[in-house]
Amino acid sequence: MKAILLLSGGLDSTTTAAIARSRGFELYALTVSYGQRHRWELEAARRVAEAMGVVRHEFLDVDLGRFGGSALTCEEMAVPHGRDEAEMGSDIPVTYVPARNTVLLSLALAYAETVGAADIFLGVNHIDYSGYPDCRPAFLEAFEKMANLGTKAGVEGTLKLKIHAPLLTMSKGEIIRRGLELGVDYSLTHTCYDPDAEGRSCGECDACLLRLQGFREAGVADPVEYQK
Amino acid sequence: MKAILLLSGGLDSTTTAAIARSRGFELYALTVSYGQRHRWELEAARRVAEAMGVVRHEFLDVDLGRFGGSALTCEEMAVPHGRDEAEMGSDIPVTYVPARNTVLLSLALAYAETVGAADIFLGVNHIDYSGYPDCRPAFLEAFEKMANLGTKAGVEGTLKLKIHAPLLTMSKGEIIRRGLELGVDYSLTHTCYDPDAEGRSCGECDACLLRLQGFREAGVADPVEYQK
Repeated sequence: MKAILLLSGGLDSTTTAAIARSRGFELYALTVSYGQRHRWELEAARRVAEAMGVVRHEFLDVDLGRFGGSALTCEEMAVPHGRDEAEMGSDIPVTYVPARNTVLLSLALAYAETVGAADIFLGVNHIDYSGYPDCRPAFLEAFEKMANLGTKAGVEGTLKLKIHAPLLTMSKGEIIRRGLELGVDYSLTHTCYDPDAEGRSCGECDACLLRLQGFREAGVADPVEYQK
Repeated sequence: MKAILLLSGGLDSTTTAAIARSRGFELYALTVSYGQRHRWELEAARRVAEAMGVVRHEFLDVDLGRFGGSALTCEEMAVPHGRDEAEMGSDIPVTYVPARNTVLLSLALAYAETVGAADIFLGVNHIDYSGYPDCRPAFLEAFEKMANLGTKAGVEGTLKLKIHAPLLTMSKGEIIRRGLELGVDYSLTHTCYDPDAEGRSCGECDACLLRLQGFREAGVADPVEYQK
């Protein structure tokens, strides 16, 4: 069985890859560069895809940054540092990219229909990222319904498209423990929004803070390198 | 009021632009190059945007062609010529691009959220393109529902996103008559899937045949140049 895997090279999508593989899927990875500030994520995606034995790995550039509107794609907005969990969870974060998961899933859908895959895996996680509307179950269900109405495969009934978000209800610590059980090497992954010129993680952006907290919760050391 | 306009530079999206403008919208155009075979559409989009007085015109490249699967994006599949209407209407055509409207609408949604537009205009038409699943009302409604669940603007209630497809129930002849009433100059548009090196239309692909039939139905001459 073929499955599309949206692979950023971060902790969540890497763990999702390991889970999809453990369920017997052949992985067709898709890494989308949507105007992120750095290329370290893409290198991590390449390393992870190789380690996971993906059948095919496509890279697509979609320059969402030209629309503006997010700290992750727009140089004029600052990535927040050193926020506590209450601050992170209280509202939709500045790092929200407008319609990001809609765009990513649409591209995955085009890929799925082309290669004949019915299953799309996405590493979203509604506990840690409760602030992002496009990580919620109601959104994923609405996308799945739309996908089955808007594709030849769905309409002709040759493929019943399904969106899988196996991490949806897991904490970061649970995700890491599950990944370690499945043999994931987290030194291959990249999480930081704001790495230095050598690709070392800042340890202070929201993504780093959630990652570090997850490793503490899992009771293991994070194998990636930090700036301090 | 701001509206996003998906603008290919063809007859349908150009007429849609005129309709949106007539309803008082300020137009933010988006032209997506998804690996089409030729650049004539993009030049037509530029001409039309200028003629329609759009506020902003963004061009995005999304190389769906690398997934394969359509005659419009894949050199190995032939564009059909000289088919009659029954053949065109009988099944999902080879020129179907997997998940194309899902991808286009997703990108429009990202643009809409960024500029603060609640309205997205799309020139789909379910009579002529009854073979495309992603031109049907049920698909458009499902997309709209998903969009309001998957965006910050939708969730916070600051924008109620709406997909407009004003041509949906119109024949090609009706579309042309409506456009002419609104002052559209159809010599600016490009429709052909398979133009020659000078950009002249072939007159024989499905798109040309439908266009020519539309002009006959409207009782006016098509102002674009044909190869013969």
